[in-house]
Amino acid sequence: MNSIKERDRKNVHAGKAAGVAGTGEHRAHGDGAMTGQLPVPHVKELPGGVTAPKGFRAAGIHCGVKQSKKDLCLVVSDAPASAAVVLTTNRVQAAPVLVTREQMQRSRIFRAIVVNSGNANACTGERGMNDARAMVGATASALNVGPDQVLVSSTGVIGQFLPIGRITEGIKKAAAVLSSEGGRSAAEAIITTDTFVKEYALEFDCDGVRVTMGGMAKGSGMIAPNMATMLAFVTTDASVSPAVLGSALSRAAGRSFNRISVDGDTSTNDMVAVLANGRSGAGSLTEAGGPRYEAFYAALEQMLVTLSKLIVKDGEGATKFIEINVTGARDEEEAVKAARAIANSNLVKTAIHGEDANWGRILAAVGYSGIEFDPSKVEIYFGSVPILRRNYTIDFSEEEAKKVLGRKEITITVSLHEGEGSASFWTCDLSKEYVAINANYRT
Amino acid sequence: MNSIKERDRKNVHAGKAAGVAGTGEHRAHGDGAMTGQLPVPHVKELPGGVTAPKGFRAAGIHCGVKQSKKDLCLVVSDAPASAAVVLTTNRVQAAPVLVTREQMQRSRIFRAIVVNSGNANACTGERGMNDARAMVGATASALNVGPDQVLVSSTGVIGQFLPIGRITEGIKKAAAVLSSEGGRSAAEAIITTDTFVKEYALEFDCDGVRVTMGGMAKGSGMIAPNMATMLAFVTTDASVSPAVLGSALSRAAGRSFNRISVDGDTSTNDMVAVLANGRSGAGSLTEAGGPRYEAFYAALEQMLVTLSKLIVKDGEGATKFIEINVTGARDEEEAVKAARAIANSNLVKTAIHGEDANWGRILAAVGYSGIEFDPSKVEIYFGSVPILRRNYTIDFSEEEAKKVLGRKEITITVSLHEGEGSASFWTCDLSKEYVAINANYRT
Repeated sequence: MNSIKERDRKNVHAGKAAGVAGTGEHRAHGDGAMTGQLPVPHVKELPGGVTAPKGFRAAGIHCGVKQSKKDLCLVVSDAPASAAVVLTTNRVQAAPVLVTREQMQRSRIFRAIVVNSGNANACTGERGMNDARAMVGATASALNVGPDQVLVSSTGVIGQFLPIGRITEGIKKAAAVLSSEGGRSAAEAIITTDTFVKEYALEFDCDGVRVTMGGMAKGSGMIAPNMATMLAFVTTDASVSPAVLGSALSRAAGRSFNRISVDGDTSTNDMVAVLANGRSGAGSLTEAGGPRYEAFYAALEQMLVTLSKLIVKDGEGATKFIEINVTGARDEEEAVKAARAIANSNLVKTAIHGEDANWGRILAAVGYSGIEFDPSKVEIYFGSVPILRRNYTIDFSEEEAKKVLGRKEITITVSLHEGEGSASFWTCDLSKEYVAINANYRT
Repeated sequence: MNSIKERDRKNVHAGKAAGVAGTGEHRAHGDGAMTGQLPVPHVKELPGGVTAPKGFRAAGIHCGVKQSKKDLCLVVSDAPASAAVVLTTNRVQAAPVLVTREQMQRSRIFRAIVVNSGNANACTGERGMNDARAMVGATASALNVGPDQVLVSSTGVIGQFLPIGRITEGIKKAAAVLSSEGGRSAAEAIITTDTFVKEYALEFDCDGVRVTMGGMAKGSGMIAPNMATMLAFVTTDASVSPAVLGSALSRAAGRSFNRISVDGDTSTNDMVAVLANGRSGAGSLTEAGGPRYEAFYAALEQMLVTLSKLIVKDGEGATKFIEINVTGARDEEEAVKAARAIANSNLVKTAIHGEDANWGRILAAVGYSGIEFDPSKVEIYFGSVPILRRNYTIDFSEEEAKKVLGRKEITITVSLHEGEGSASFWTCDLSKEYVAINANYRT
């Protein structure tokens, strides 16, 4: 079985991701909606992750939740930072999700995020809530900040109590080794079944001042629209008011984490958090509009889309990365619905895995997506090869189709010819390895 | 890899299916909703299928759509029969579905159903419509009945034109060999990737008169709520007005074919049709109510639930049959939503495949199903073994859980403790074989 994983970072850094920010609103800059190739101006990719921006330190250590791998991390801002958070929509919410929501109701200015992996602290009742609060308290003590300035997150097995003593001891140790070089360690400490570490950084120009943004993510399995078992933490030295940061995050998450699917499930612990500490010295963003805001928003969307794609590429057992572009829908919402139905179809995902140009399954998925369209007007492309033309005209070379489907990255474009709505969605194929990994996760 | 398939018919005939009609409305008779064990009174299972009732003949032959297997069947009533039909809700509808809808708009009294397998006649435009009408015409000629008295159905590959000459020739041949023993042949001629033939028959008492009902089905893969690639044809010698037959079919399909899932996709060709020719001599049903109607409805629901379960058991690559019972929901609709989310979760299905008591994935699926509930009140049972108790109390023997999960038929019960709503849903596990079968279906 080949793997796409080794190639991921390279492809992303080669600018493949950048164009995705060209969908939707950004189509004004050119096209890009179908091909995802248009780079957003002024954004430059950097090595590193959450400690790339000025004024952030981090650490990742082993404290004893997992047997030997890193399982605890701290991300700390040297200055009070505006915070914005998106949390899982699952009705079953883990204790750290509930505690983070409480924290965000008290304040929008934070100094630190503490995360453990290996244990989700979910379905753990009152004791779980106390444990999550203890993580906040221990972090606040170790950093000498207020307990209302710490966000908390967990990922791992559901229904087991945290080894809270080991974790609070670990927090002291992690605080002692915080470093502006610690981003990679932190990214290593948040992963579970992931097969590679996910981080990304970029810089952009804000009125002549260089602003930096860094991020890390945890994915693999249970990734779906509405934020399945997925964590992402983003830092930036931009100066952004909490309200503006919140609206930018909400919009960008809708076009990134809510447009990826590995297996259609959502989970109890999902969280995306952004901290903005203003240390770049760039002017403050206090309104959601204007060229400076748009530059910031484009950078944030590029960051979240890139992290989202890395998560899809690490989908359990994935051997192919699939980009689905729906164009010509009556509006963007219908385009998203159609793209999501295709992305979540096991039959489409297994056909792609088998490199079979089964356009009938794609059309059938659009058919049950709930949108309005005339099937006889639909056109389907694999890469640039037209597979289905209007009036059900099928006239493609199996050889050419096989060539496209033999690649590790496949673009499927569905043109509905009903209107101007378009959307991109990212998913992976469904392999026997997915079944093998998930059949025995818990035991 | 073990297979459950050989055991299916025996289990069904041993009365396992009967109790399912005890859910919902039928709870008034006792409980049965959770265990599915309550038999419906007065219903007796019989051998055979669509030719078990009086006045029906059938034939199944090879005409040349497939390479060598049977691919064409006729089911004929010797007397004009009331008809009721349920068709796919997919926006992409095959030509035979569109033609059958036209036919049903003209009349509710029919004499025959013609079905081919191997080619779905879907996405074939005007030529496909003409081909479906030609099937109707050829059948009417061969049987010497009006062209408004024939229903048509197809299943198989999408996007290819029918070899209509071979099919119309085949229709003549099939008409020449119609027989009251032909039910099995007919059932053989409608299957595609199915690994076993699906038929079922029963009789029940109607005011001292014996009424018989027979059915056959085609499934395997792409089965989901709202009727995926799935065909079912039911005959009965009951006397039922078209309107009453329509309302009984609509209700029973909602509790059978719309409560099964193999992979969550729906297709272009699904159809359930019932013909009732009155040849039993029992009094006519012209109102949807009263004990005679309830006896007929119970028999029809048992027929459709049994055929539905046979389809699930033949799910592609399935090694385990899973019954999901949700109880204590706020109403039946919410119970169905929760049960469907569990049944469609790849993570739940792979965990069951791996015999892993991963209750967290079940709870998470209920969490994103969109229903209202308090997670801390939820209880989950595997068979009769409590796995999760209220307040997230987990106190089960892995050994006992393994024993239940090692079986070929597994019942999962989720008690929400929010109200009186309950529902059953049937699905199968997700295996590596599913991926293997679906990765190379078309080529």
